[in-house]
Amino acid sequence: MAQSFRHRLSEMLDPEMHRGPGLSALNRLVVAGILVLILLTVLDTEVRITAQHGGLMRGIELALFAMFAAEYLGRLWVAPLNPRVRGALAYALTPSALLDLVVLASFLLPYLGPEATVFRLLQLARILRLARLGRYSRAMRLLFDAVRSRGPELMLSALVAVSLMLGAATLLYLVERQVQPEAFGSIPRSLWWAVETLTTVGYGDVIPVTPLGRLLAALTALCGIGVIALPAGVLAGAFSDAIRQAREDAAHHKPHSP
Amino acid sequence: MAQSFRHRLSEMLDPEMHRGPGLSALNRLVVAGILVLILLTVLDTEVRITAQHGGLMRGIELALFAMFAAEYLGRLWVAPLNPRVRGALAYALTPSALLDLVVLASFLLPYLGPEATVFRLLQLARILRLARLGRYSRAMRLLFDAVRSRGPELMLSALVAVSLMLGAATLLYLVERQVQPEAFGSIPRSLWWAVETLTTVGYGDVIPVTPLGRLLAALTALCGIGVIALPAGVLAGAFSDAIRQAREDAAHHKPHSP
Amino acid sequence: MAQSFRHRLSEMLDPEMHRGPGLSALNRLVVAGILVLILLTVLDTEVRITAQHGGLMRGIELALFAMFAAEYLGRLWVAPLNPRVRGALAYALTPSALLDLVVLASFLLPYLGPEATVFRLLQLARILRLARLGRYSRAMRLLFDAVRSRGPELMLSALVAVSLMLGAATLLYLVERQVQPEAFGSIPRSLWWAVETLTTVGYGDVIPVTPLGRLLAALTALCGIGVIALPAGVLAGAFSDAIRQAREDAAHHKPHSP
Amino acid sequence: MAQSFRHRLSEMLDPEMHRGPGLSALNRLVVAGILVLILLTVLDTEVRITAQHGGLMRGIELALFAMFAAEYLGRLWVAPLNPRVRGALAYALTPSALLDLVVLASFLLPYLGPEATVFRLLQLARILRLARLGRYSRAMRLLFDAVRSRGPELMLSALVAVSLMLGAATLLYLVERQVQPEAFGSIPRSLWWAVETLTTVGYGDVIPVTPLGRLLAALTALCGIGVIALPAGVLAGAFSDAIRQAREDAAHHKPHSP
Repeated sequence: MAQSFRHRLSEMLDPEMHRGPGLSALNRLVVAGILVLILLTVLDTEVRITAQHGGLMRGIELALFAMFAAEYLGRLWVAPLNPRVRGALAYALTPSALLDLVVLASFLLPYLGPEATVFRLLQLARILRLARLGRYSRAMRLLFDAVRSRGPELMLSALVAVSLMLGAATLLYLVERQVQPEAFGSIPRSLWWAVETLTTVGYGDVIPVTPLGRLLAALTALCGIGVIALPAGVLAGAFSDAIRQAREDAAHHKPHSP
Repeated sequence: MAQSFRHRLSEMLDPEMHRGPGLSALNRLVVAGILVLILLTVLDTEVRITAQHGGLMRGIELALFAMFAAEYLGRLWVAPLNPRVRGALAYALTPSALLDLVVLASFLLPYLGPEATVFRLLQLARILRLARLGRYSRAMRLLFDAVRSRGPELMLSALVAVSLMLGAATLLYLVERQVQPEAFGSIPRSLWWAVETLTTVGYGDVIPVTPLGRLLAALTALCGIGVIALPAGVLAGAFSDAIRQAREDAAHHKPHSP
Repeated sequence: MAQSFRHRLSEMLDPEMHRGPGLSALNRLVVAGILVLILLTVLDTEVRITAQHGGLMRGIELALFAMFAAEYLGRLWVAPLNPRVRGALAYALTPSALLDLVVLASFLLPYLGPEATVFRLLQLARILRLARLGRYSRAMRLLFDAVRSRGPELMLSALVAVSLMLGAATLLYLVERQVQPEAFGSIPRSLWWAVETLTTVGYGDVIPVTPLGRLLAALTALCGIGVIALPAGVLAGAFSDAIRQAREDAAHHKPHSP
Repeated sequence: MAQSFRHRLSEMLDPEMHRGPGLSALNRLVVAGILVLILLTVLDTEVRITAQHGGLMRGIELALFAMFAAEYLGRLWVAPLNPRVRGALAYALTPSALLDLVVLASFLLPYLGPEATVFRLLQLARILRLARLGRYSRAMRLLFDAVRSRGPELMLSALVAVSLMLGAATLLYLVERQVQPEAFGSIPRSLWWAVETLTTVGYGDVIPVTPLGRLLAALTALCGIGVIALPAGVLAGAFSDAIRQAREDAAHHKPHSP
């Protein structure tokens, strides 16, 4: 009976104390609870749904609150067992514990208005936090390293994109401002068109009408291909490189291990 | 006269029994028949076409039914010749034989209403099944392996995309819900806008009108580039890696063969 | 005086007889003439432009006709000097010479109506033909080889895309056909929406209105990212591979040359 | 007291004379000033903003003018200390110094009309110039080399895209010109549709209505995927190659250094 209930709970709640790969069953339940809460928070803003299923949704919300409150208290209780944490109070003041508290508080204040929904969506950060220690930790490091290692190239791609955007917006402003003052009467307005064209979103609410404006718009749309292809190419090269590097590292370390 | 007609039919119908590369002539005919049936099923829902060519289409349908029924019976007959299949009945209960039966049944029930068309489109799965054993098997494994080997990275890319989508939808909901209650009056409605912006589809039916909303929308559209570039980069790296790996494996195995 | 005018003309007109890298000055002039003719052909269909500059355009057209006629006769005259060509008549019957003749004929028949413009745009093929032998030959082979070497993978990507398209169109047809019979009343109509959504073009002329239809449409739009990312990734891997291969080949061949 | 104020200023202003990595604090201030000026120039065209904050904006503009004038005079003064520059007058005639003068002049002529804003946006070139010598120099060379090394392939991709565009526009012009003379009545008008479809921008202002036109439009939209995937793939391969090359070069040079 060496392992008390507290120790077993610690292993189940604290991903750093968990033995074996992946997340513990309890933490998977927490992730599921978070997903349900996010879905609930999203649906809760739609009057058509709350009018019909309001009672059910309040019930689920209450159950989730009870679950998350128990989880919070449990984490406080088992925190001292983790050698890296100094005590329950020290744990309570870590950013992640404070985030949990903010989320719990958002349950108690349903009358704060729709802005409070933002706090609940912060739950997504908790999923990422749990994922960091679970199966996705390697994938996360790979993604993060690849993006960071190409930071300057991506920044330059963004600079090129912004310069193109400013240039296109200014030219269209000069060409179309007399004909369509509402849409192209200033560079900020023109920028709205430039963004939706260069990103190839193309809502179609603002369209140049003069022949010269259309010629410039067509060139801008063609440049949009490069604006997407450049960062995609940079990232593709970075991932290809990161994967090879990881494999070579693995090959180097293998001979030393029995 | 060692090879009876049944053996020859088995070689022609069963891709696993086929000698030589690719699909047999008979199976190519089956693939062509499937493509014609799919085209027919699609066109059959358009009143303007059935009003003019209804008779012709019924004729083609009947011919295809006869062909697929003969194929089904033929496959049942030759199934026992394949050492991996235990008998005609065992074959008839395999998922692929049951799928064939469902497709055949869909011919007999043209008055089931438009939902029955879905069953016919399941034919596409048959093409993939035949392709798996033919010339495309290697390409299929390469595609499948590359996607699966980067599963965690693609999942994380999707998680980032969904988080961005939820965040953008929530912010736009907060900013625009007073001005455009119909389009941004709840997060689910806002999500419709967020999806079409982040995927750069941009139908243009829902567009923010406030200056702050437009600024956020522009930032969302720019993030959309990353949402496309990230999985494209991950997949590009994975394919590049899979191709190199396949070549190295081939180079390793070559020395052993004369 | 060993080299007659005919020999010099042969070197200038026939890319295979040309000494030195790239295209000869005369062939560059031909390429410029082709580009001018294409621009002229495009502008010629716009009444607003022909009404103003009709005379000038007829003049340029006449000059281009004279130039291309002289080029055609010149090529006939010098063809026998190329050891690979058997004689002027044999040359006149090659596809490229016949194409030149078709283009020349299109000048003589300006009253054939707008369909004749298509023949003139065939000139683009002539540019590609000249480019094949010039500086771009290596780039062309690299592009072509990369696309062809990944043929099965690209075909499968296309098959996946078409299946997604058919599936999305069928589902939207089932969901929306009662509400919007004009836009989703048959699978062919639904396919118009599916194509513009999966390719992220998003004209916005056809949009689902039911909640279930919108949910399916959002999922379709998200799948559209994969439909773009998959072939982009396949091609990226193929190019990366082709470049490395070309370099390794170059490294292998170097030691043998002095 | 070996280093006078002039020498210290030279080190702070001239990136080539700067010791240590990155940009000096003074040059970072200049970059910040340029960004503020660009933002100010953009906002200055919007009447709604100038009506409210006109006084404040004039004040910031004056301060920026003073700062850039001082910077210009400072650069003139310290230019002779850089061994690569022959003297203050020689420096004043370099393109970058003349660009600075043009930008300064744009302050003095606010009544030139909106066309003058273009001159101020030339400041973006100054950022690139400073970045070239700072931390981004390596990233810039990598991006530039990768794009240039694949120049012919990117040119061919563009040629393919333009050919597709011309072909699609011509076909749609032939099919739709009777039904929609305003939108498809000439090839230049048709090209507007072709550009927004092939780049997947899809404003939706011009849409084919005939069944044949829609079929061709759907095929064009599908080709648009290749038009984006091809250059993205070429660039991805080029970046992947450039990164590996840079690493191999680094590995080769290491053994020679202690």
